[in-house]
Parts: sequence; C-alpha cells; structure tokens
Amino acid sequence: MYIGIDVGGTAVKAGVVDGEGRVLSRAEVKSEPASDAAMLRAMYSAMLRAMEGAGLSKDDVSAVGIGSSGICDNAKGTIIYSGNIAYDNTAVREFFSERINARIDVENDVNCAAIGEYALYGGGADSFVFVALGTGVGGGIIINKRLYSGLHGGAGEVGHMTLVPGGRLCGCGARGCWEAYASVSALISDARERGGCFSALPAIDGKAVFDAAERGLPEAVEVRDGWIRRVAEGVCSLVNILRPEKLVIGGAVSRQGETLLAPIRRYVAENAYANDVPGIGMTEISAARLMGDAGIVGAAMLHKLV
Amino acid sequence: MYIGIDVGGTAVKAGVVDGEGRVLSRAEVKSEPASDAAMLRAMYSAMLRAMEGAGLSKDDVSAVGIGSSGICDNAKGTIIYSGNIAYDNTAVREFFSERINARIDVENDVNCAAIGEYALYGGGADSFVFVALGTGVGGGIIINKRLYSGLHGGAGEVGHMTLVPGGRLCGCGARGCWEAYASVSALISDARERGGCFSALPAIDGKAVFDAAERGLPEAVEVRDGWIRRVAEGVCSLVNILRPEKLVIGGAVSRQGETLLAPIRRYVAENAYANDVPGIGMTEISAARLMGDAGIVGAAMLHKLV
Repeated sequence: MYIGIDVGGTAVKAGVVDGEGRVLSRAEVKSEPASDAAMLRAMYSAMLRAMEGAGLSKDDVSAVGIGSSGICDNAKGTIIYSGNIAYDNTAVREFFSERINARIDVENDVNCAAIGEYALYGGGADSFVFVALGTGVGGGIIINKRLYSGLHGGAGEVGHMTLVPGGRLCGCGARGCWEAYASVSALISDARERGGCFSALPAIDGKAVFDAAERGLPEAVEVRDGWIRRVAEGVCSLVNILRPEKLVIGGAVSRQGETLLAPIRRYVAENAYANDVPGIGMTEISAARLMGDAGIVGAAMLHKLV
Repeated sequence: MYIGIDVGGTAVKAGVVDGEGRVLSRAEVKSEPASDAAMLRAMYSAMLRAMEGAGLSKDDVSAVGIGSSGICDNAKGTIIYSGNIAYDNTAVREFFSERINARIDVENDVNCAAIGEYALYGGGADSFVFVALGTGVGGGIIINKRLYSGLHGGAGEVGHMTLVPGGRLCGCGARGCWEAYASVSALISDARERGGCFSALPAIDGKAVFDAAERGLPEAVEVRDGWIRRVAEGVCSLVNILRPEKLVIGGAVSRQGETLLAPIRRYVAENAYANDVPGIGMTEISAARLMGDAGIVGAAMLHKLV
C-alpha cells in the first residue's frame, strides 16, 4: 500500500492509496508553514492518521510520496525552497526514513499532479506534459514514461517562459512571463481591468468570468477569449518544443471543458510547426480528470514514475 | 567503425568515424533534392566513397547514421518531410538495410549536431539542450542521456515557440516565433532595416554585424545587442521549461564566443526562475565546438544515443 502526502501552505493532506490509484482513507492536519521542522512533524502526523483510518501498520506501507509547493530535489530527498513554506534544503527523506522502512520520494506538487494524471489516465504515453492553470502556471513533464525534473528539480517551470518581452511584471520578478497572462489570477485581473459587467460583482473568480461569458455578456466574452488565446499561445510553444503525445490542462478552470479546450486545440492545429504535414501527428490535448485527490494520488504514485 | 551521412539541399557529405568521434575519411557528392529515390542513391554513393577512402568493407561498418534537414521518424526509419528536399515518408532504413548489414538510424540534422556535441563534449550530462542559430533556429534535446525526439520526431522545434504574440511573420506561417527574431536571418534583416553603416555594405551576414559592432559603430552595437537580447529571452524560456544541466549554442555565429555568450548568461542569471535561490544550480551555457564536421560526426554517433 502507498501513502501520498499533499503539503500546502494551509493544510497537509495524506491518504492511503492502492495500486490502482484508489484512495482508501484520508486525513488532514493544519499546516505549519513558518517552520520546516514543525512542517515535517505535521506531514508525519497526517500520514499516521491516514494509516490508522485504513487500519494499516508501518509494515503494510511500501512507499511514501510527499508532494509540496516549492522546488524539490528528489535525488537528494530534500525540499530546497518554497515561496510560502519555510523550507531550507529540508531533508524530508532522511526524516521519514528514520521513522518508516519504505521508499520515500519528494516532488513538487505540480509534478505530483502530473504523475497522478499520467499514471491513471496517461495510457502509457511515452511523453506527456501537464499544465496547471491556477494562481500561477505550473508544469510537469513526463518523458520516456518517467518524470523529467531537470537540474536540481528545476524543470517544468513552463509559466516562466517569456510570452511578451518586456511585458507584465510576473511574481517571479521577470517581465512578460506566460504566467502573467495565462494564470487564473491574470484572468481575474483582466476582468477587473475591463470593468463593465465585472464592476458590479463583489468578487471575481475564474468561474465568474466563464459564467458571464456563457450568459453572452460581450465584455466577458472578450476577456475570456483573450485569456484563452494567451493560454493557447503558450500551449502551442510547448507543443513545438516538446511535441508530447499528450498534453493535459489542469487546475479548477479545466472544469470548463470544451469551452476552454476547443479554442486551444484549434489554435494549436492552426499554428503548431509542421501542422500541415501529413504523417506528423498532433499532441492530444485534454482536461485533467483527477480533481481534489490529485495531490494525494500523484504523491502516492511517485515511486512508479520517478 | 561508423558512417555518418550529412544530407543537405546542396551536398551530401559522408564520413567514416571512429568511436572517439574522429573522422577517418570524407566524401561528398551532389545533392538530388528533387527526387527522394535519387537522394537515397546519392547518400549511398557518398557512403561507399567514404568507406573506400578509409579502406573499409561493408563488414567493417556496424552502424550508419543519416542526418537530414526535415522531420525524421527514426522509430519507423523514415524521413517524413523537408521544406527543401522531396521526401515523402521516404523509407531510408529499408533502403540502406537492403544494401548493408548494419544498424541504420535517421534523424534530423539539428538533432545530429546536438548528439555530436553531446557525445564528444557533453561530459555525460543527464540533460542537454542544443540550440542552432542559422537561417532558422533549431533545437535538439537530450534527456536521461538519450535524444528526446517526441511524437513522430516532432520535438525540438524551439525556434517556433511564440516570443511576440502577433509579431513578425515566421517562415512556418505562424506569427511571432522566436526564430523570426533570433535567427541569423533576423539579425541580417534587423541590420538592413536599421540602415546607417549597413547601407554602405553590398552584402550583410551575421559576422559583418558583429564586426561592425566590434569596431564600435553605434547602430551596429544597437542591432547586435537587440538581437542577442531576443536570443537570450528564448534561451531563458528553455532554461525555465527544461532546466538542463547544459545548453550549447551552435551555428556559425557561435564562433563569436563570449561576445554572444556573456550577455546571454547574464540575462539568464538575472531572469531565470528561482535564480536567487541557493541550492538551485543554473544551466551551464556554452558555444558549440564541433564545427564543419558536426553533421557527419553527430550522424555517426546516432547509434549511441537514440
């Protein structure tokens, strides 16, 4: 049996997961973002509670996967850094290995979500790219059926490719990053800036923009379609660079389904390199299917794919 | 012993190459771009002449690698398409396998150049990206010490990531591709457009722009530095997406050495994601070292890395 631990700035969730990706029990404890030592204890406590829920002892667990925001170096078993949790080359594998005799993996949460989607719905593709649209834009890259994490786990920061030289200031400090145009935060600020029907709303989230556009409000259609276009431009760049068999778009906004996906597929079909050459297959683009459990399931599947 | 065949629109070059990448003999025949059958015969004839030059019989050859412009599907042993040679899902492996009992690989010429650089100077890096700046901008990606060629060999078209949405029309038909700003052709047209000292020159090539800038002519410095900035922005995107251990810049312009490389390294150091996090190593950026023989040597090394 496998344990997946999904570590965020607010909560630490753990689950017992079987070989088919089914979650047999869940537990959640409060996060301790101000101290890495306290955070390690929170992860461990969440794990023990999830095991208790499924009636497991430590001998029943063959692998524990930890997925966290931040930059993780699974070769060393450490979390190097996160913007919202006080990691400092925190030795996660060492901490867990002293407490349980199981394989321990630690990876970035977006990489975990990528692995969860790939393991359960990837159909054994040789190459697979996961793009998470949320507060930021993250990515996970699977090549030759294995997670590709790059030098010190730094690969997959697809949100920080330059889309507009000298453009919007990104949270990372650079200008014109794809994330500054294609994140859901960017969609929301596009809507705020546009005003019109959005001025009347007390709060705007991604769904509100899609809902307003669905109702046919012209400024909402304009904001939504402009944003989808920026998403599509970046997706097309990833297709040109990596030409993966499959590319999956995740994050809550991926629930918009074809409203989001159809224009992205159309843009890629019309603009990808060699799009008109017979015999060149096009990357299959779809929406993520694992939703709330993606973090737990992906972390629990790490041992299979890293 | 290995044979490398470098197929271009003007000439077909072949060489006998040893396990250390030394070229023992060379041969060259005229290209036959109008017919794929004639082109296959030209490749074969170049191979036989190179073997003759080194005094080899077919029994001495364990692998033949063919590198060509265009989209190659090495899984099938075919060249699907090229903009300047009349390939049409041309069965290269089948043609050679009927004539010589050796392993046959066929890959895109930029992928071959990437493999040549990697095999001889890559130092066994797990991940390695090669960027060729020339008439266009091409790329070759090595991951886990193997060429990553993507779906139907379509990966590595790094020149077609979008750098400026709605920007310059690219040769591929899309707008705003990196290639339309960072190729040597773009550098030359930047210079033509700038006029000034360039108006007096009967012909401009990349070297002429660098030479004029070296002499301190302000409009040449402006054109050169603006172009290098566009190159750096795309390189930085590749670093963020793939964070390879090494990234090598090739093409004749890479002979400019530090004049080209130092500003690219500086831009990446200042703008790459997590550039200020201790413990995150930065991709090592350098210039290609194999020059005229890159195509032959890379093709001959294919058997080791695909």
